[in-house]
Amino acid sequence: MKIVGVMGPGSNHAKPKDLEYAYEIGKLVGKSGSALLSGGMSGVMEESARGAKEVGGLTIGIGPTASKSEINKYIDLPIMTGMQSGRNFINVISSDVLVFVTVGSPGTLSELAHAIQMEIPSIVIGASEHLQHYIKELSATKVVFVNSLEEIESNLHLFLEKK
Amino acid sequence: MKIVGVMGPGSNHAKPKDLEYAYEIGKLVGKSGSALLSGGMSGVMEESARGAKEVGGLTIGIGPTASKSEINKYIDLPIMTGMQSGRNFINVISSDVLVFVTVGSPGTLSELAHAIQMEIPSIVIGASEHLQHYIKELSATKVVFVNSLEEIESNLHLFLEKK
Amino acid sequence: MKIVGVMGPGSNHAKPKDLEYAYEIGKLVGKSGSALLSGGMSGVMEESARGAKEVGGLTIGIGPTASKSEINKYIDLPIMTGMQSGRNFINVISSDVLVFVTVGSPGTLSELAHAIQMEIPSIVIGASEHLQHYIKELSATKVVFVNSLEEIESNLHLFLEKK
Amino acid sequence: MKIVGVMGPGSNHAKPKDLEYAYEIGKLVGKSGSALLSGGMSGVMEESARGAKEVGGLTIGIGPTASKSEINKYIDLPIMTGMQSGRNFINVISSDVLVFVTVGSPGTLSELAHAIQMEIPSIVIGASEHLQHYIKELSATKVVFVNSLEEIESNLHLFLEKK
Repeated sequence: MKIVGVMGPGSNHAKPKDLEYAYEIGKLVGKSGSALLSGGMSGVMEESARGAKEVGGLTIGIGPTASKSEINKYIDLPIMTGMQSGRNFINVISSDVLVFVTVGSPGTLSELAHAIQMEIPSIVIGASEHLQHYIKELSATKVVFVNSLEEIESNLHLFLEKK
Repeated sequence: MKIVGVMGPGSNHAKPKDLEYAYEIGKLVGKSGSALLSGGMSGVMEESARGAKEVGGLTIGIGPTASKSEINKYIDLPIMTGMQSGRNFINVISSDVLVFVTVGSPGTLSELAHAIQMEIPSIVIGASEHLQHYIKELSATKVVFVNSLEEIESNLHLFLEKK
Repeated sequence: MKIVGVMGPGSNHAKPKDLEYAYEIGKLVGKSGSALLSGGMSGVMEESARGAKEVGGLTIGIGPTASKSEINKYIDLPIMTGMQSGRNFINVISSDVLVFVTVGSPGTLSELAHAIQMEIPSIVIGASEHLQHYIKELSATKVVFVNSLEEIESNLHLFLEKK
Repeated sequence: MKIVGVMGPGSNHAKPKDLEYAYEIGKLVGKSGSALLSGGMSGVMEESARGAKEVGGLTIGIGPTASKSEINKYIDLPIMTGMQSGRNFINVISSDVLVFVTVGSPGTLSELAHAIQMEIPSIVIGASEHLQHYIKELSATKVVFVNSLEEIESNLHLFLEKK
């Protein structure tokens, strides 16, 4: 089964628009037949899992703690690491394709950095102009910046077919 | 969804009897409605996943490498860590209940040690007399030593109900 | 003993100017009386350790592999993780102060991201305009962008005094 | 510089005799010219570091948390992982030789298991009869069981010379 990682801020950094996107992206992933993977916590991680469950998808949460009690309720399979943000590398390399819902928090940035490093196909919505320019300076060839859910959907299917 | 970890040697250390047990345990886990988690590689990890798939179960492999190409073909969801045997701690704390198929390799021993430390209910088949005595010296209260598949099944259901 | 992490690309991404800076920064750290920590490999990691050793400093390398044979020869204390780039989080949280020699590779970017997240005081030389603007968008309060060795030295002493 | 790991229980599991041994072993390691590495916390980890410092040795602590505030005061170089007991694998593979002060807690057992797996030369004092017999069943070729500080000292020098 293919795994699509959805990366984005927890409730401390997420904006209302991020959460709306996360929910819709969760539904896209759920419908695609791939499992949805996230960091298992709040904010984008919770809303994307909620979206996936609503359409019958399967959800995985790679938790930063050792206790499942902190994982959001839309996660079917909590994988616990006890590694704090050291688990971000695991989020990335476990995903066949990644979708980033803005890169407005340093945790999400660390995941985008690892995605570029490990060459995991990545779709990014809501990136600032400066981030987009900077990422181009890194010669990242597998990062696509998009502006709409439609573009996420088409790129997601394109990337999943290639895998 | 509950997760049952099945721990045991890879093909380099596994004996024929270990593999037979692994396959049957995989079927038990698959039928229980819990997901089966293992280290994703060969030997006990492969046979237990094969058993679970045969009865329609869901299988997770926590891989020691970064590349999914090394994961056995009965794993539905490969979670990659790139951590070598450092991932053994993740195997343990992600499981609600653990089943050990002999503890005849040091890798499996590290997992039993972490299970005792983190107080994850554990069922062990095929443990030597000396290991059983030693584990008792550690005052491990959640480790059950058994001698048959029937005992695994009854203890597995008991532990899953309590969770 | 305080620890100063020096982060930057390996020989595959490092430019001649990066290596010159790394060597001089290594000397600054060595003279400061703090231990120098890096990822232990080639490029900036090797040149900074060489600089520190030349002035009698102590050097630590947090290696991505399990074998010490791959660590550069200027490292006194190789700490092995077997975690690939998952060890980047360890590099960051083990350092009292960080110095970044350009952020022109995704591995170094992951370390800057974790530094912002964990609020480790960080000095960055050679950052592009776009990166600087983007980092400001993240409201990172402990990142200082500089253009000269003199500025690195003064900020390093300032940050070390505060610790 | 060579690194000698000293593994043993924290203050919750350590007995008075363990702490006495730890202190004396710390002095042996400090005098040997190797750095002493431990898990950085209390009990055996603290007493061994205290012994090493008393004779002018260098001490490294691989901490389970992300914050240096929890590391004992005899540690010169706190390396933080934020990985809880997942850091035990790092303790082992970073050491050229290991000394175990009893194996009476599951955390220490996980380290002995990884030492056997990774074939790190290991000296164990205070092991029970059952543990000794069990470890022999694992065909561990680099584990030496001893009963006195003199035997630790002679084996330590033997192992360090071979490295």
